[in-house]
Amino acid sequence: MTSALSAQRSLGDYQAYLFDVDGTLIYPGRPIEGAIEAVLALKRASKRTLIVTNNSTLSRAGMAAKLRSFGFPIQESDVGTAVVATAVFIAQECPGARVQVLGSQGLRDELRRAGLEVRDDGAPVDYLVVGCDPEVTYERLARAMRAALAGARFIAVNQDRLIYDPQGSYPGSAMFVGAIRGATGREPDVVIGKPSSLLLQEVLVLLGLPASECLFIGDSLTTDVLAARAVGMPCLLVMTGVTDHATLRASDVQPDYVLESVGELVEYLEPAPLPRRSGH
Amino acid sequence: MTSALSAQRSLGDYQAYLFDVDGTLIYPGRPIEGAIEAVLALKRASKRTLIVTNNSTLSRAGMAAKLRSFGFPIQESDVGTAVVATAVFIAQECPGARVQVLGSQGLRDELRRAGLEVRDDGAPVDYLVVGCDPEVTYERLARAMRAALAGARFIAVNQDRLIYDPQGSYPGSAMFVGAIRGATGREPDVVIGKPSSLLLQEVLVLLGLPASECLFIGDSLTTDVLAARAVGMPCLLVMTGVTDHATLRASDVQPDYVLESVGELVEYLEPAPLPRRSGH
Repeated sequence: MTSALSAQRSLGDYQAYLFDVDGTLIYPGRPIEGAIEAVLALKRASKRTLIVTNNSTLSRAGMAAKLRSFGFPIQESDVGTAVVATAVFIAQECPGARVQVLGSQGLRDELRRAGLEVRDDGAPVDYLVVGCDPEVTYERLARAMRAALAGARFIAVNQDRLIYDPQGSYPGSAMFVGAIRGATGREPDVVIGKPSSLLLQEVLVLLGLPASECLFIGDSLTTDVLAARAVGMPCLLVMTGVTDHATLRASDVQPDYVLESVGELVEYLEPAPLPRRSGH
Repeated sequence: MTSALSAQRSLGDYQAYLFDVDGTLIYPGRPIEGAIEAVLALKRASKRTLIVTNNSTLSRAGMAAKLRSFGFPIQESDVGTAVVATAVFIAQECPGARVQVLGSQGLRDELRRAGLEVRDDGAPVDYLVVGCDPEVTYERLARAMRAALAGARFIAVNQDRLIYDPQGSYPGSAMFVGAIRGATGREPDVVIGKPSSLLLQEVLVLLGLPASECLFIGDSLTTDVLAARAVGMPCLLVMTGVTDHATLRASDVQPDYVLESVGELVEYLEPAPLPRRSGH
């Protein structure tokens, strides 16, 4: 089943291609076969390419550097992350706000870059921002809890449960959001990352394009496809990550296109027949 | 309003007196006025006294040492904690079980003392035990998450949100339980501490007394009084901790007795009129 939209339009006909990272461009620790070639082919075809990731620990520069280390032709300006979107969201809502962070150095860096005042001294704050914190300590948890109890606006960078790594699975932001919820009973006031629409809304502003001119490419029905749906953006599901065919068949959430791998995208950048869902 | 039970029985007529600690015997950082004298008077009157605390970080010896440092005449054998009750519960359910701990050294010590095998190397485990972990790290959180995802039986030492300290409020076990819940979607299979009845059930076995011969003394309607109710134990609420009179009046949960402070208990250890609820 393809939607009316995808039936009318070739996979190669969009102006911009937005990529999820984990499970779409890279496996844990290495690039997915054909992914680098696909991004290169899009650039040759003068398409805009943008990385759109829920990653809550890396700054924009850090994410670009990570992808370049795998061989992807990605600059800092090609990256939109939930970290940056969080910083922009708060800076728009309350310029210069005081922020308590339960999260990584990359998150702190981007918040400061957006003109926000990151406080770690227990002073009153306007916002509590929670992402994945690989350097978590009990004192950090205590400061975050106190900020939540004192009524700071509670922003979750995302609610991803798992981060896949060559060494095994690691806890994502959901664990830290759950810690604050458990200690205070509070839910996040705002969630920035996918499946929330906020990340993609900010990316569209950055691109200056309507959603219908962009194709979102990801591996997750519950984050990528839902986020694309929420902003009316066509979406392509790849089967190299968290979704298998049985899950896809059973799901109420359906993408516009399905490919086994992002590498197959290259075929559609030359004159080609209408895309069909493969792998069934 | 006193219950039928308390109307029939003087506060001085019980065989055993079970004390909550924080807000009942000690404020953050110092003993509550008259509390040491009350425990001494009970001992002079040949009453059994027992500490019954949700504390999830100290071993039994550690809790006794802490109370002695404040001047209370408490030995290790006078202490029942959620930590010990957790160790006993698991050792009874599955002797020698392999246990992954997200919690303190005191918790690990008591689990080992009960003959359980505390594993920190990522090996498969039978149980995941979660309490407050003042030395928490991301690696510890990751190991606990993986044990929960692998299906280990999930035991929470307690679900207390806050620990009061002279330096401010700190997160209790509920934050760490919430972290596991957030990362995995799992709820604890068993909660040991108050308001669960398991801690008091074990204490009754230790005392060898029926619940009706014991008086539970605590400062919290939602943990102490509920736990006593759950095992049919008479209970005395003191107003030196988390409960104020307005909260007490509005509550569906009512204790059998109320005193402003545990120090007033001394009056009832001599021939005295029937107790009345004071402070109204």
